Amino acid sequence: MIPTLATAPTPCLVLDEARMNRNIARLHARLEGTGVVFRPHLKTAKCIEVARRLMTSPAGPAMVSTLREAEEFAAAGVVDLTYGVGIAPDKLDRVAAIRAGGCDLAVLIDSVEQAEALTRRGDCIPALIEIDCDGHRSGVVPEDAARLLAIARALPPGGPRGVLTHGGESYNARSAAALRAAAEGERLAVVRAAAILREAGFACPVVSAGSTPTFLAAESFEGLTEFRAGVSVFFDLFQAGVGVCGPEEIALSVLTEVIGHQSAKGWTITDAGWMAMSRDRGTASQAVDQGYGVVLDIAGRPLGETIVIAANQEHGIVAARPGSGAPAPAPPIGARLRVLPNHACATAAQYDRYLVVGAETGEIIAEWPRFGGW
Amino acid sequence: MIPTLATAPTPCLVLDEARMNRNIARLHARLEGTGVVFRPHLKTAKCIEVARRLMTSPAGPAMVSTLREAEEFAAAGVVDLTYGVGIAPDKLDRVAAIRAGGCDLAVLIDSVEQAEALTRRGDCIPALIEIDCDGHRSGVVPEDAARLLAIARALPPGGPRGVLTHGGESYNARSAAALRAAAEGERLAVVRAAAILREAGFACPVVSAGSTPTFLAAESFEGLTEFRAGVSVFFDLFQAGVGVCGPEEIALSVLTEVIGHQSAKGWTITDAGWMAMSRDRGTASQAVDQGYGVVLDIAGRPLGETIVIAANQEHGIVAARPGSGAPAPAPPIGARLRVLPNHACATAAQYDRYLVVGAETGEIIAEWPRFGGW
Repeated sequence: MIPTLATAPTPCLVLDEARMNRNIARLHARLEGTGVVFRPHLKTAKCIEVARRLMTSPAGPAMVSTLREAEEFAAAGVVDLTYGVGIAPDKLDRVAAIRAGGCDLAVLIDSVEQAEALTRRGDCIPALIEIDCDGHRSGVVPEDAARLLAIARALPPGGPRGVLTHGGESYNARSAAALRAAAEGERLAVVRAAAILREAGFACPVVSAGSTPTFLAAESFEGLTEFRAGVSVFFDLFQAGVGVCGPEEIALSVLTEVIGHQSAKGWTITDAGWMAMSRDRGTASQAVDQGYGVVLDIAGRPLGETIVIAANQEHGIVAARPGSGAPAPAPPIGARLRVLPNHACATAAQYDRYLVVGAETGEIIAEWPRFGGW
Repeated sequence: MIPTLATAPTPCLVLDEARMNRNIARLHARLEGTGVVFRPHLKTAKCIEVARRLMTSPAGPAMVSTLREAEEFAAAGVVDLTYGVGIAPDKLDRVAAIRAGGCDLAVLIDSVEQAEALTRRGDCIPALIEIDCDGHRSGVVPEDAARLLAIARALPPGGPRGVLTHGGESYNARSAAALRAAAEGERLAVVRAAAILREAGFACPVVSAGSTPTFLAAESFEGLTEFRAGVSVFFDLFQAGVGVCGPEEIALSVLTEVIGHQSAKGWTITDAGWMAMSRDRGTASQAVDQGYGVVLDIAGRPLGETIVIAANQEHGIVAARPGSGAPAPAPPIGARLRVLPNHACATAAQYDRYLVVGAETGEIIAEWPRFGGW
């Protein structure tokens, strides 16, 4: 039996279907008429129902962050996947098994060693070369043409399926101009890498860029064949802090219940602590620190300047934002609240299902399972 | 088939059985001859195999942080449980169902409203009154005798089963003297509350204190009937930073694999990002910031000053500790490492099993399932 917002055991994860659908429509509209393929990242959703709505077709394409995701989505009929974390050779048997099931799963490499491991196998697992556009983590800088070509030449004949970059530093952008610059830097890095490979005779059919902030800020997709974004299916307070969405677009919240008060301090205690919200405090480094999340009423309406100011494992401490001078709310024991998360990926990972709230009644209309692990 | 440290899919959670057994022996020895009952907190373990070793009997007593834990451990034969998070009235049907199955599950309250909700039911669910010993979160301050007695009088005849406090502020102690003071403050608060109740005619049979730091630092247990501790079964870098264990006593680590390098920066990239380690950065506020964890070799031996300096969702960035001047390690792609976590509760929560490494061979000898959720 599907519970209601008033009866669902708390804490639990609520997904606002109408907001999600609007976010997806915005993503799809972004690339319309550009000829650039949308390859959504499914690491945030980890749910077949969400994936089917987010992908441009039930068969893909899509991006994953774990082989567990690849296995789950391949089993659900997705036939075009990229595993977006550098591959270790001993994971290749698992990749081959997924491919043998009919899914065209590609891997990511940024070293000659990885290319040689693929060549030694002889089973034609396709690889993209990761390009480092901003020093954020992995990848070859496009200026290092020698390394780029050495990797391509160490692959089986035909070379890489393409090049791929992730503008992770865009998460630290603090203005619209900085976001646009990050998007352009991401595009130029991967286009330049593709040009180097093509000049050397490699076809390099795929030129892939992507991050939620750059996807929404980019002014040009020229030279790209595909774009990726993940968290934008739900959004979160961190993305709102970056400026790529408003809090009213965040589709995910944690339903929680009041379990006590410390009235002298203006605190309301709830049953959504950091286990329910995750330990992600990404907004702590932004202009507005949202604590462990922004507190709404049960219907999702704002409650003034109310946030989760602190959290223990299974206790949330709800109060007016420090320094706001706002009145401290004190909903009674048993009252239900919803909390917008700092980071959709981290918060959703704490749950095994989404309780989907429909637009028409504002009530739970479905439970969608989600998975975790590797 | 049980995998080996060399073949287990990474990232995965490794439990060093010998270290765990030594930690448990230390906990059990702590209360020997005192007449004080040890009620371990099972919120860290969430695993029946670990619980059976940690409890003083297979039937309990024990403490839990979620009703899911209560249900799982009750089903496994534990008959004496305390749910250590303030109860909301609409959770009481679930509590009653667990009790009907033969488990004496007690709840925690700190308000007249909660006491009245219990009285209205008439099914004699036992309640402890939570005492606030340090302003950390919930509870009645022992100085507020009027509130304490009002709660006790709102309960069914007989009053509360007892009083309980958690010295959560001990986690912020920065010296042995501060830890001893926190332990004594915790003890005195709950003993004083019990005295107030007993003077008013309530039996108040249980006087319960507990936190890992105060358990290990306490000089006196006088007046207490039971003590609780949880994370001490595994320990973690945060507890090492508090000074209650050494890093060589930490029983939990994440097994990970090298997937790349950024040699110019001295970085090694692994497949254990924040999803594998959790977002917990508790050591950031301590004297030694351990990043996302301390890196060991596959056998659990230290690798100098090597830590996870940064993490993305599925990428860990391993390097020499900033400022240490230590040489940067560069294990090859495919090499396996182990990472000690900041916070055992948060890291373990990311996994559905423990891979248990035995002392004799230093290899995996068992897989123990663990659960999550609420």
